[in-house]
Amino acid sequence: MAEYCFGIDIGGTTVKCGLFKTDGELCDKWEIVTRTEDGGKQILPDVAASILKKMEEKGIAKEQVSGVGVGVPGPVIKEREVSVAVNLHWGYTMLADELEALLNGICVKVGNDANVAALGEMWKGGGEGTRSLVMVTLGTGVGGGIIVDGKIVTGAHGAGGEIGHACVDPSETESCNCGNKGCLEQMASATGIVRLAKKILAVETEPTVLNAEDISAKAIFDAYKEGDATAAKIVDRFAEYLGNALGIFGCVVDPEVFVIGGGVSKAGQPLIDAVKKYYQRDAFLSCKDTPIVLAKLDNDAGIFGAAKLVVE
Amino acid sequence: MAEYCFGIDIGGTTVKCGLFKTDGELCDKWEIVTRTEDGGKQILPDVAASILKKMEEKGIAKEQVSGVGVGVPGPVIKEREVSVAVNLHWGYTMLADELEALLNGICVKVGNDANVAALGEMWKGGGEGTRSLVMVTLGTGVGGGIIVDGKIVTGAHGAGGEIGHACVDPSETESCNCGNKGCLEQMASATGIVRLAKKILAVETEPTVLNAEDISAKAIFDAYKEGDATAAKIVDRFAEYLGNALGIFGCVVDPEVFVIGGGVSKAGQPLIDAVKKYYQRDAFLSCKDTPIVLAKLDNDAGIFGAAKLVVE
Repeated sequence: MAEYCFGIDIGGTTVKCGLFKTDGELCDKWEIVTRTEDGGKQILPDVAASILKKMEEKGIAKEQVSGVGVGVPGPVIKEREVSVAVNLHWGYTMLADELEALLNGICVKVGNDANVAALGEMWKGGGEGTRSLVMVTLGTGVGGGIIVDGKIVTGAHGAGGEIGHACVDPSETESCNCGNKGCLEQMASATGIVRLAKKILAVETEPTVLNAEDISAKAIFDAYKEGDATAAKIVDRFAEYLGNALGIFGCVVDPEVFVIGGGVSKAGQPLIDAVKKYYQRDAFLSCKDTPIVLAKLDNDAGIFGAAKLVVE
Repeated sequence: MAEYCFGIDIGGTTVKCGLFKTDGELCDKWEIVTRTEDGGKQILPDVAASILKKMEEKGIAKEQVSGVGVGVPGPVIKEREVSVAVNLHWGYTMLADELEALLNGICVKVGNDANVAALGEMWKGGGEGTRSLVMVTLGTGVGGGIIVDGKIVTGAHGAGGEIGHACVDPSETESCNCGNKGCLEQMASATGIVRLAKKILAVETEPTVLNAEDISAKAIFDAYKEGDATAAKIVDRFAEYLGNALGIFGCVVDPEVFVIGGGVSKAGQPLIDAVKKYYQRDAFLSCKDTPIVLAKLDNDAGIFGAAKLVVE
């Protein structure tokens, strides 16, 4: 009986690996280096070798493994193929076919890393017990994942959950990395919050502990918690953009919960409370009480979600 | 073998009924009056009697019917129950249980009317051949429906596809019928376009055929097609709101196609072209070419979509 599964999260520098019970218990986790040289052709053989070694070490037979789920930084087709993964130096890759062959036929399923992290948070994180959620990852950029009825919404072009590029301010004049103007990522990522801060500091006359020359999202939220009035203006601006956006997303998929993760979310409950104020202003009546919670799995969300791909 | 199915669209004044082959061919359609008196308790018996009569008339046995799909104007739970349907004078109603009993056990499934119309357009309308779409119905209000992987996204509170209440302009000062301010419905419904028009006409100095005292969405689009510069400003404003909103919805679910229906969409391709300009400005890179098309089924979308509920 299949009582184990593996969750593999392939990043540009390390591959995070997890051995799980199929009920979601994490038995072991480890990392290997991502060897991106030669078009990343060693990555899958390295992953396979590491999995087979772990099975041998733990005395786990092939029949005891329900499958291997893999998260990759790129668009994924039909849970099997990767269109392109720039950070891994991969072009089009038949990932599931290749890895299944290397693993003597153990079932492999693949997901985009941001989407898979959302699935992980649904399974054992901030959204545990739900079957639908919108996950927002506030990091250097803004990532996301949409889960409906327990499944990732991949989208017709692999852009399901690309909520960082929702155009929340058409009047914005600066360009986002994606080429558009006014993306949520320009307002709510770590760098986006700093950008908002610099705009506000440029016209601010009240005293503040913040210094436009040396500023970070963390410094802004720290000052906010200390009662700095300028920091409060910056957080309020960020929160209005994000809260409004969550309200719009809610009118589309109406999730059971919104889960906020990523480095910026380390600011904790004060961030959630600031966002909730604007979410509740703009959300559709029947969704105003949808919980907005912090992610729980941190960097492990990817391995949890990858493992969940191969568990019903 | 089940070769037939019924699609029933219950509205506040009439019940639209369709007899279909399970491949989607419409064999017969008719209407009955919606008797809303006495808390609408006659509605389901009337529907059942009409279906049974049609089966007798056509010589169709119970075993030849895969099921009866029903669209209702209200939130639906698990394809069986209706929370409330104000226009039918219904409170909570165990619709599927009741109608199955009246139909001697023929399978019944239920969906919200706007969502069911989206499913109909996916099956045999503007989205035929796809498995995912965002439908926008521009009528007195703005309705919608989201289809992912061939299924309606109902949402945790029945608010999936309530895109008319996406807050697209937080700076709006007038209230929507829902109580919020800045809803898409205030900008893109028939009444919303007139509202935008009155604002623009109040400050407009150029000559125009439009008259603020006697104006309609149709008059605005007619004038736009005739080259009226003021009408062009109004349509442009409407199109920016709707195109931007579609771009945001695309970042959430990334559908194969956007389908635009409802009375306002009678303006046709010029409306689509106006919206497309702003959609392509704001959509995420990989979604910029997602087609935006006109709905095809008009008032029959509901019976088609209801029938599809009971066809795999």
